[in-house]
Amino acid sequence: MGESPEVAVSTVIFALRNEDPRSAEPPTLSLPLVFRTREPFDGRWALPGGPLGDETLQDAARRTLAATTGLEPAYLEQMYTFGDPGRSPDGRRVVSVVYWALVRADEVAHARPQQNVRWLAADDLPTLAFDHNLVVEYALWRLRNKVSYGRIAHALLGETFTLRELREVHEIVRQKRLDPANFRRQVEADGAVVPTSEMRTGGAHRPARLYRYNTEVEPVDLGPIAQPTRSDT
Amino acid sequence: MGESPEVAVSTVIFALRNEDPRSAEPPTLSLPLVFRTREPFDGRWALPGGPLGDETLQDAARRTLAATTGLEPAYLEQMYTFGDPGRSPDGRRVVSVVYWALVRADEVAHARPQQNVRWLAADDLPTLAFDHNLVVEYALWRLRNKVSYGRIAHALLGETFTLRELREVHEIVRQKRLDPANFRRQVEADGAVVPTSEMRTGGAHRPARLYRYNTEVEPVDLGPIAQPTRSDT
Repeated sequence: MGESPEVAVSTVIFALRNEDPRSAEPPTLSLPLVFRTREPFDGRWALPGGPLGDETLQDAARRTLAATTGLEPAYLEQMYTFGDPGRSPDGRRVVSVVYWALVRADEVAHARPQQNVRWLAADDLPTLAFDHNLVVEYALWRLRNKVSYGRIAHALLGETFTLRELREVHEIVRQKRLDPANFRRQVEADGAVVPTSEMRTGGAHRPARLYRYNTEVEPVDLGPIAQPTRSDT
Repeated sequence: MGESPEVAVSTVIFALRNEDPRSAEPPTLSLPLVFRTREPFDGRWALPGGPLGDETLQDAARRTLAATTGLEPAYLEQMYTFGDPGRSPDGRRVVSVVYWALVRADEVAHARPQQNVRWLAADDLPTLAFDHNLVVEYALWRLRNKVSYGRIAHALLGETFTLRELREVHEIVRQKRLDPANFRRQVEADGAVVPTSEMRTGGAHRPARLYRYNTEVEPVDLGPIAQPTRSDT
């Protein structure tokens, strides 16, 4: 049966970011990576994470993410467990439970900046440590195929957003341009987001109606293993 | 950080079964459980599974399932990893990667009968070993909320099935009676199953049109981590 494997956690955190916050360019779907300064994979970027301690898997993901990146997202979801033999080149067997989250740009801005951490574009990554390119590829596939656009908008944009912001998020996630008038009609017919009585004023654009995610249409339902967002201990 | 945890796999296998194959009663949503004859949880039922060997996680699930139950489902899907401290009462830390599958009654009938294995009704379980009641509860929630009825029918009924059989599966999974005429209209409007040119004759009922799952409408898409159904080794 070989040696007992190690258990580790890793996290994939997606946010829409501009490297330069004053830029007028659309933001990029990005994730934080940690620069490795020791073997294996010295000099490569890796997902935030680390070994499991005397804690739940989710708490381990939360602890190692905060320690490396300063990020403390409200909600981390378990995504997949990777455990193929040979994931680590030094002969150790490592089983990694991967958690993921979508966070808003302002949450990123509030995190303490950390050494050796950089946000890289999810669709233009270098070769990462371990099998982390595959992990990110799977996370992108889940984001693009398994998460509703209402939930993506809510998680990445926050409580309220304009239709323009919503369309830009969809364009980035779907990787294609959308016609503004068609997009507005689809959103209004769909009901997953609803208009508020508020307007966004100022900035580069005309005043625009603010919308919110309609939690009545699509509650975030975690089922019987729903956990509190943070453990009490 | 405490001792290094053990890594194990478990499987939740759902099938629609009649304890007595000649019964005219609708079948029951059931899963195979293994009777434990040693501590911890001596005398309780547990999910099939065992420790991870020098193999992929999926191969470990496949191996331990076949060894305990004789079942070899075509497709096992990773469901969730359970790793809370205190899952095992003897002080060991066990992280369990749980796989699941839906199998047809005829696959169950072909499996070699095994000692200490029994199929129990998923909605009427005794207290199981470890946290396995929670694991099954989560699997039932996934089945009822996250899997389309087309896929459920395809997996539990096989290539072709009558509308009556399809309705009975839906009734069992949704746990409520459905009006046959309304059900037929919904199915025909939906397009997830389509009629074939075949009829089912014989048995207790009138000849009835056979339908099949429309894979064009809803391909089973596993994304970039899709694995072959069985490893080559």
